[in-house]
Formats: sequence, C-alpha cells, structure tokens
Amino acid sequence: MPVSSQDSTHQPGGLNLDPWYDNYARRTAGLTVSEVRALFAVASRPEVVSLAGGSPFVSALPEELIHRAFKRMMKEHGAEALQYGGGQGIVQLRERILDLMAIEGITGASADDVVTTTGSQHAIDLVTKLFINPGDVILLETPSYVGALGTFKSYEADVRHVDMDEEGLNLEALEAAIHKARAEGKAVKFLYTIPNFNNPTGVTMSAARRREVLDLCIREDVLIVEDNPYGLLYFDEPAPNAIRSLDEDHVLYLGSFSKILSPGVRVGYVLAPHGIREKLILAVESSILSPSSLNQWLVTEYLEGSDWRAQIDTFRGTYRERRDAMLLALEEYLPQLSWTVPNGGFFTWVQLPQSLDSKQMLPRATKELVAYTPGTGFYADGRGHDKMRLSFSLPTPERIRLGVRRLANVINGELEIIETFGSFDNRSADDGRFASAPPDLN
Amino acid sequence: MPVSSQDSTHQPGGLNLDPWYDNYARRTAGLTVSEVRALFAVASRPEVVSLAGGSPFVSALPEELIHRAFKRMMKEHGAEALQYGGGQGIVQLRERILDLMAIEGITGASADDVVTTTGSQHAIDLVTKLFINPGDVILLETPSYVGALGTFKSYEADVRHVDMDEEGLNLEALEAAIHKARAEGKAVKFLYTIPNFNNPTGVTMSAARRREVLDLCIREDVLIVEDNPYGLLYFDEPAPNAIRSLDEDHVLYLGSFSKILSPGVRVGYVLAPHGIREKLILAVESSILSPSSLNQWLVTEYLEGSDWRAQIDTFRGTYRERRDAMLLALEEYLPQLSWTVPNGGFFTWVQLPQSLDSKQMLPRATKELVAYTPGTGFYADGRGHDKMRLSFSLPTPERIRLGVRRLANVINGELEIIETFGSFDNRSADDGRFASAPPDLN
Ligand SMILES: Cc1ncc(COP(=O)(O)O)c(C=O)c1O
Ligand SMILES: Cc1ncc(COP(=O)(O)O)c(C=O)c1O
Repeated sequence: MPVSSQDSTHQPGGLNLDPWYDNYARRTAGLTVSEVRALFAVASRPEVVSLAGGSPFVSALPEELIHRAFKRMMKEHGAEALQYGGGQGIVQLRERILDLMAIEGITGASADDVVTTTGSQHAIDLVTKLFINPGDVILLETPSYVGALGTFKSYEADVRHVDMDEEGLNLEALEAAIHKARAEGKAVKFLYTIPNFNNPTGVTMSAARRREVLDLCIREDVLIVEDNPYGLLYFDEPAPNAIRSLDEDHVLYLGSFSKILSPGVRVGYVLAPHGIREKLILAVESSILSPSSLNQWLVTEYLEGSDWRAQIDTFRGTYRERRDAMLLALEEYLPQLSWTVPNGGFFTWVQLPQSLDSKQMLPRATKELVAYTPGTGFYADGRGHDKMRLSFSLPTPERIRLGVRRLANVINGELEIIETFGSFDNRSADDGRFASAPPDLN
Repeated sequence: MPVSSQDSTHQPGGLNLDPWYDNYARRTAGLTVSEVRALFAVASRPEVVSLAGGSPFVSALPEELIHRAFKRMMKEHGAEALQYGGGQGIVQLRERILDLMAIEGITGASADDVVTTTGSQHAIDLVTKLFINPGDVILLETPSYVGALGTFKSYEADVRHVDMDEEGLNLEALEAAIHKARAEGKAVKFLYTIPNFNNPTGVTMSAARRREVLDLCIREDVLIVEDNPYGLLYFDEPAPNAIRSLDEDHVLYLGSFSKILSPGVRVGYVLAPHGIREKLILAVESSILSPSSLNQWLVTEYLEGSDWRAQIDTFRGTYRERRDAMLLALEEYLPQLSWTVPNGGFFTWVQLPQSLDSKQMLPRATKELVAYTPGTGFYADGRGHDKMRLSFSLPTPERIRLGVRRLANVINGELEIIETFGSFDNRSADDGRFASAPPDLN
C-alpha cells in the first residue's frame, strides 16, 4: 500500500523508496536491470572501444536510400503512412517479407500468415504472452539471447537451457529436458532457438540437426520458436535453410529488419501457424493497436525501390572483414584462449580461464578503455562467469584490433594478480557506478 | 497438447481447428475479437459514411511539415535515427514533451521522469503488466475506452465500472467501489480515467471533481492512471488542468502524438512517479528493446522546426466544425434521442430507445451505408446495447450530415419494425459476416 506524500517517513517495502513498491504485479520480480545495461553508456564514450552491444553498422547504409524511400512513401502513401493501420501490418510489406524469407528456403508461405511487429523483440514478447502461464517451461540453447531471457522471466517462465555441441542443440539433451519437465508435471510450451549465428555464441545449427530437432519436436508436440535476425548476414556459405522451410505447423518464425536495414525503424515480423497468427494479431492490437504505418511503408518502399540484395551484400562484406579482424587479433593477442568462429552475424564467444570472472573484470576493462559483454547475462541459471561475448559489428577493423589488444592486457593483468593474490572472490569489483546508465540490451 | 500433422483427425479443444489450442496461456481467454473490429473494413468502403472508428483527420496536417522534419532529422541525426536507442526514449523528445504537458498545467516535471512508448496504447499495456496480477481490480469510468478494456482483460484484471454524473466520476460511487473491492479481499491497483473529452462519451471531468477524485485516491492509496490523448483538442474553453498538475506522487500520466500530429508514428509517453518510471523503462526494454528512434527524432524535429501550436489550432478548428455539424444533424434528424455535447475530442455518445440494440442494428446500418460503434464494447459487463458512439473526426461536415440522416432512417425503421413485430430478441441480426475484417480498435 503506498503512503501519502504527507507521510514520507513510513517506508513500505523495507528500505525501498518507491511508495508503490508493494503494489507491483508478481511478474515484476523478473524485471530486473540487465547485466549489460551498463555497457551502453560506457560504449558510447568515444575513447572506449566497445566490443559490447549488438548495434549494426548503420553507416554502411547510404542515407540516400532512406531519403528515396521516404519520398516515394509520402508521394504514394502519405495519408496512409500517417494514419492508424491494421493490427496485422500492411499487406504490401507482408508480401515483400515473403521474398526475404524465400532466400532462406521458406517458400509457399502466405502474406496472410505474416504479422508485423515493433522489432522482433516485440514478437518474442507477444509469443511469450500468448503461451506462458507462470511456471511453464521454455527450452533454449546454452547460452541464449539476453533480451529473450529477460522477456521470458517477465512472464514468470521456467527457462531451461539445453546443452549444445558443434552442430547446435544436443538432441539427447533436448529430449531429456522435455521428458524431465513433463515428469515434473510441467507444460513445455516451446523451444526457443536462434539457429543462425547465434547470439551470443555465433554458432550455427547444421542442416541435419535442424531436421532432427524438428522431428523430435513434432514427435513430442513442442512448438519451435525460430528466431532468425542474422540469417542473411553470412560470411562464407549461406546458412542451411530455415527450420520453418521444413514444416509449417510446428514452427513460429521470427524475422527482423534491424540487422539488414535499420533497428531505428523497429520493424520485425512473425510467420505463424494459422491459428496462432489469429491470436498474435489480437496480441499486437492489445499491445500497441497497430505497428507504425510510417515505418512499415518506409521499409516497403525501400524494398520496392532499392537493390536491397546488393545492400545486404555490402553489410555482409563489412561484417566479414570485421569478423576476420577480430579472429586475427584474438590469435595474435590472446592465443591461450579459445573462441567460436562465426560464419555470420555479429558475435564471437570467448572462453576465459576458469579463475576469471568476466563481470567482475568489467570495471577494470573499461578503465583500460575496452568493453565487452560478460557471459552471465546469457544464462538463466548463473553460469557464464568465465565467458564473454565480443561483438565486431560496430567498430572498424583497426578499432577491433586495438580493443582486443587492450582486452589482452586486462586479462593477462588479472591472471597475474590472481597468481599473486588468489582468486577474485576476496575483492569487490562491481562498484555499482554503472547503475543509472542507459541500456543496450541486445 | 497439439497433434502431429499426421494425426489430423484428433481435434483437441473440441471443434477448434488450431492444433495449439490447448497450449495457450490462461490470459488469452481475455484476448477476444473486439466488437468494433468489424468496422474498419466497413468504414473503409468509400460509399459508407463511417461515424465509427477514432482515426484523426491527418489530411489537416500539411505534408510539407513532415518532409521538413524528416530532412532536418536526417541531416542532424541520421545515424542516431537509424540506430537502436535507449529504452526510456531520446532525451531531446522528452524535453519537448515537457512543453506540451505544461499547456495542461503540468509544470516542474523532469524529462527524467518521462518515458516514451509506441503510442499510448503501449503505455496502457506496460502499466497493466507492471501492476496487475490475475484478479486484481482496476476501476474506470462508465463507459470507457475499448482498447484499455481489452488490454486490462488480457492481463486478467477484474475491471469495475464506476458511475458517472455530468462532472465525471461520481465520488461516492468511487469510494464505495474501492471499499467493496477491499472488503472482498481484492487489491485495487489503479483508477483508469480519461478526464478530457472521454472516449467514448465526450464528457469532461470538472476541475472541482478532479481535486476530489485525487484527494480520495490519496486518502485511499489508489494510483490514478490519467489517460489524456485529446486534452489539447478543445473547442470552446480549454479543459481544466490535468489531475497530474495537482499531484506528482499518485498520478501516472499518459499522453500521445496520435491526435495532435499522427498516429502513424506511434509515439506516446508516460510521466510517472519516480519509482514507477524505473520499472516502466525495464518494461519497455522487455517489450520492444527501445521505441523507434526514427519516429522519435521525426517528432522531435517536427516540434522544434514547426509551429505545432498553430497546427493544433488548425486541428481544433476542423474538429469543432465537425462537432457542430454532428450536433446540428442530430437535432434535425433524431430530435427524439439524447446525446452528449463534447467540448473537445472526437466523439458524441448517443442514448437510444431501450428497445433498440445497437450491435444487432449494425448490419442494417451498413446496408444503409452508415457505420457507428455499438455501445457494448465500452463496458466490461455487457451493458451498453442501447448506446452508440458517433465519431466526427474523419468525415467532412457534409458527410457527417448525410451519415446522421441515414442513421435516422435506420433507427426509425427499426423502431417501426419493433412496434409491429416486437423486440429484437426474436430475430438474429449478427450474421457473422464481419468476423474476419481488419480491426479499428480505438
Ligand atoms: C537473437 C535476437 N533476437 C531478437 C533480437 C531483437 O531484435 P529487434 O527487436 O531489433 O528485431 C535481437 C537483437 O539483438 C537478437 O540478437
Ligand atoms: C482514450 C484513449 N487512450 C489511448 C488511445 C491510444 O492511442 P495511441 O496508442 O494511438 O496513442 C486512444 C486511441 O484512440 C484513446 O482513445
């Protein structure tokens, strides 16, 4: 019960200064400040080389393309772009989305089964809202996307990691996790997977494994939520076809324009089994009435009036060069560590010596003017202290090299201290000074 | 449990054809197709005069203003506009929002306590997510905004209407509702109110009543959610100052650019008590990572580079003229009915003879080429069959006149039939033919 402003001495909720503290819904216990929230502020100081964050390099997009799309939009669809639209999203955009999905093997889909959203994060939120009662089980990779974990927790899901091998989700582990949850009387609501250039690991699920995971999920009646924002950003060979290309009834497919065009427009989409599609539209309406008509038309005109395939090639070239710079620098400066070799996307995942704690090391790293994302944020169960995610999407190759060199100094310095004084646990590292920084949650 | 595609004879969930039917969260029971969803399709047929829907007349906005804002944005903030932003929204926009709120008496607020959202519908959704456990009570006006009702139901709130008089919420009824809910052991989480030019009734809460409602809510420790998308669109005198102008600790204030600029940009905002603000940002991040940077910068540059006050005056003039046309036509063609006289906003609320059912009458009305919003959608408890909402925001004065004339034909025709054959209950009117039409939820 809140206190009136006259009575500011009574503090409900113990030491909490928020008078509404006791009024929040139970689910807000899962709404905690992300471990990587701090990094945005740090990363935005120009002297820091940020290997944290997951921001695309939007400067690789000629602004002229946006100007042109905007002009076309205002000329042809100005009034519509400024008005409310339908909850499902505009049909012209949904039809262009079919072209995009076809590149990853999804053919024969209908624009009628596509729903557009405010970025794919919004899609993750809505799907979770549709399916999760408190305590229901969501299965996912080890580790997995921090933004999805946060959303799952905000609906009080019981989030369970499934072990991986080099081909992606381990089949036996997946089957065992399903059976274990059911034996406990739990409902397994869906498997959330990022099969291409996973965030954070950069790992891609093999074609054979996709088939096997799908077959298992069909056999066990488990819905697959396939989240694929990076699929078109491959470096060497294209990734295998989407799981959704193999089955339309058991897969809910999420895509996004954030990484192949711009996250500033916040346009994502879902291709859903028919019955779910219907409910998703209601969920969109209940959440925001309708996605931004202006942004949807802008993306539509961009797709219709520009060579967007060539633009994706440009992005791929940029990110490939940066990936190469990252891997070379790791080999040069940190040869004693191991890391994943991503064939696309934005990230590599680094294994540190067990004695290091990447979260506790972060303040020291930022003092040395380099930032990264600590591993723990990508686990629902507290693991990951000896892992870190390095992102190569935003800094130039030279800056990546500089960043990794600085990182090597930090890591080697920490290892020396530990050799001399023992492990981290005796020292306090997180001094809370990042607490009010703006977030970078992806 | 869903069935595999091989086994399509087994239909879980009875006759429902969705194989995932049994997997949805309990809250989806509240996610039902809105009663006014049908109207969008009907209204968009050019021969129909739509007095339904709540779309603003965006054509009153010179497109040149949007072009100019876009150019300024790309020139000064192109890279930022295309990139992810912070969950709270960009500070430059939040500072301009202070200017807007000041017009309605909210002074001394800090941009730090403003959070931008994907339209104010998104704010309603997030606030509900933050506060409502299943079964918690939300109090609101009788009747109230259909989009809020839908969202409240989607979080399984116990929604309770409070009686009104000509000055707004009836104080005794409000107090009684609080006490009754608490006596039942229920948590009263907030009062949701639209004090200015209420959707759907057009009624405005008096200044004195605002003070009394606030005092009661302070005394009873009930949070007020003040939803004010129409406040600046007054016709004669300005509405009384916002409730938020009287108290900063017990009021969470929602605003929107949908009605004074464009709903296509989906930019709304919340001014929240400090502790709630913190949680709201987390809820935004969990829902969409960050609101569209592009739309936020576009609105910012519009506010900084155009005479937006003059533009609001233009909107006010347009809507005043249309309100006048609506009231005149009602007097001329339907003098036997009663309706509200709104001093701002988009709507008037019409009382029909008890024997009529506005929902059942709708198919006949559309056959006569006029559409309106039936009253039942604005009640959580099934009332409202003898009410209808008429919107004057979109059609021209001539079309409004034509629409009301047609409506009079329909109503008088229905009354004749009832006199001859008895009441509606014996006849089936809703033949379901609108079931798959796109929505217009506001
Ligand atoms: C795996 C994954 N899914 C979803 C998202 C959300 O992206 P958006 O909401 O911008 O489409 C991200 C963003 O980084 C991501 O990495
Ligand atoms: C009372 C009220 N609140 C909120 C909204 C949502 O508006 P938006 O999400 O476009 O800001 C509307 C829309 O009609 C409304 O009438």
